[in-house]
Amino acid sequence: MKREQIKLAVLGVIGFMIKKPRIAKEQFESFLPMLPINLPTLNDTRVIKMCTTWPRHYLGLEEGLIDFMDKVEDLSSNNIIFKYYPSGTKISTYQCFDVVKKGYIHMYHSFEYYWQEKHPGFTYFSAIPFGLSSEQFPDWLNNNGGQKLWDELSKKFGLKCLPCGTTGNNIGIWSNKELNDLDDFKGLKVHLPGLGGKILEKLGAIHIDIPQTQILEKLKNKEIDMAAWIGPWHSCNDDFHKVAKYYYPAFHEPSTLISLGINLDYWKELNEWEQEIITTSATWTTDEMTKKFSNENKKAIKKLNKVEIKEYPPGVYNKLKETSLKILEEYASYDLLTNRIYSSIKAYKKNNKEWAKINNNFVCN
Amino acid sequence: MKREQIKLAVLGVIGFMIKKPRIAKEQFESFLPMLPINLPTLNDTRVIKMCTTWPRHYLGLEEGLIDFMDKVEDLSSNNIIFKYYPSGTKISTYQCFDVVKKGYIHMYHSFEYYWQEKHPGFTYFSAIPFGLSSEQFPDWLNNNGGQKLWDELSKKFGLKCLPCGTTGNNIGIWSNKELNDLDDFKGLKVHLPGLGGKILEKLGAIHIDIPQTQILEKLKNKEIDMAAWIGPWHSCNDDFHKVAKYYYPAFHEPSTLISLGINLDYWKELNEWEQEIITTSATWTTDEMTKKFSNENKKAIKKLNKVEIKEYPPGVYNKLKETSLKILEEYASYDLLTNRIYSSIKAYKKNNKEWAKINNNFVCN
Repeated sequence: MKREQIKLAVLGVIGFMIKKPRIAKEQFESFLPMLPINLPTLNDTRVIKMCTTWPRHYLGLEEGLIDFMDKVEDLSSNNIIFKYYPSGTKISTYQCFDVVKKGYIHMYHSFEYYWQEKHPGFTYFSAIPFGLSSEQFPDWLNNNGGQKLWDELSKKFGLKCLPCGTTGNNIGIWSNKELNDLDDFKGLKVHLPGLGGKILEKLGAIHIDIPQTQILEKLKNKEIDMAAWIGPWHSCNDDFHKVAKYYYPAFHEPSTLISLGINLDYWKELNEWEQEIITTSATWTTDEMTKKFSNENKKAIKKLNKVEIKEYPPGVYNKLKETSLKILEEYASYDLLTNRIYSSIKAYKKNNKEWAKINNNFVCN
Repeated sequence: MKREQIKLAVLGVIGFMIKKPRIAKEQFESFLPMLPINLPTLNDTRVIKMCTTWPRHYLGLEEGLIDFMDKVEDLSSNNIIFKYYPSGTKISTYQCFDVVKKGYIHMYHSFEYYWQEKHPGFTYFSAIPFGLSSEQFPDWLNNNGGQKLWDELSKKFGLKCLPCGTTGNNIGIWSNKELNDLDDFKGLKVHLPGLGGKILEKLGAIHIDIPQTQILEKLKNKEIDMAAWIGPWHSCNDDFHKVAKYYYPAFHEPSTLISLGINLDYWKELNEWEQEIITTSATWTTDEMTKKFSNENKKAIKKLNKVEIKEYPPGVYNKLKETSLKILEEYASYDLLTNRIYSSIKAYKKNNKEWAKINNNFVCN
């Protein structure tokens, strides 16, 4: 087969995979060695191959990744440059973990809960019902033991992972049904990402699993009653505020951490200066994305004027919390490591409560 | 005069200045050309001379500056290195502005309110009664027009200034007198840094101006009734919690921004890569210091158990706010630029209120 023929064959297979991302493991792995990843290395210049779970031009998320890559290139004075594969161009969303694990691609930029079938421990490094917030996630990781646990988990899969962005605080859930008591969850048709759907199912709701692109239409046609998608920036950009009556406090995915997954052998190969450039750029990206999302969310909530901002009726908040904690405990019982990860998060949250109480009292507005 | 004699003469003059920092302008300027700042330049290595208002080993503040310098050195792979003068070793706290303005030293690390006698506009870039918080300061500067105004102000003095740290949220004011109504401020002996003292004076308090090193003793001996010093980390480290009965919400200096002041001609001389390394390291330092202070403040408040955490009696909060705003307006009337700076801050704060209202409703704990 000539080069062009190989390329066409590969694109054909990839086209098939994009349509149907959840392919069988065997089929997926046999495909891996065919990926066209032979790239030039320009003399001393290091070329890092980056894949991601974001499609091209995806609001906020792809922008954050591009900012990260630009920062590494700028700080290294172009001694490090990137060859970047947006999701769906050559590597699909669900392939990222394996192509990096196997060393065909050096890094991915993604949400770790996409890999929870590999190990449920990964979910604690992306989104946790009832916290952590976008400010708390990096603090837990960098100053309170979280990164060490993440290193321990990712090492099992030949990876080194770092925080490299957040989606800001997701403050709300859109609804067309008013909640008056706990019984109102019974039969409620909901779509909440992550563990949110599972939590509401325990309260009697029916979880409807659909791609993000269908949420708006189904909310409009009353095929679902309640839904969430990232924060106000993204959901107002998708016009949720035009079809929903109420906005309830988010509890299921307060903020989602974005991760940089690096092939562990490759990470060890990098010299100290290169590691420094990458970790600094990742920290910088986490902070920049949190600020950017917060700023854009602030602009977006100005569109809410027709939407009623609600609180949960008495008793509902506590029941949501109790149910969330039960599910988190279930996940944490998977193995000792997952248990240690969740225990560390619980200890961190407890430690923060007293500070939050006084800090909220602090006069600033 | 031989080299050694010059050195002794210089040290003599500096010794005099350290004891008495607020020397006359003429005396100060005539001294400038004598500073021993001839440093080696190692081939292609750029040596940046840095002065600061923090004494050697000063808790949190000098640590932040050292982290910044290390980050620049690491990211540049030691193509940029620092020659660093802690306050009092060769250059005193109050000299920093002038030695950088005149180009004898390239950069300072400081609080801008130290230069409010040069121009009252500087105070808005360090601490503002009733906000901005440590999270809001960089957001206003980078995303909401603050940096452009700072550039306009600092350019008048031959400087380029950047945020390079915060002291975190200062949540409290220590007191040995319980406040029951507004009248309790009358005759109250207070020591609050920045504009705080001026605000309480308008309510009848007596402001006692003392160096930070004397606050603890005077609070203990009842020579002052009420005092503040940065956040819980610093004030508990200084044992304020052992001599004060109450802790009231801070309003006077919610967070203090730390600035990097760079000689403007020198800044223009740097190439793009060098500017990139410096701005990224400064942003990184701002975020790191905010996290560090928050983390240490959280540990420190565990020492508060004997101190009673109080809220202001009804009416007092509004009066404090009204008086603060009056003083801020007075400062802002100095010239058109100061007026534009304060107007920009007011617009930013207004814009944030709606977000804060919903974000506080967001379920996370």
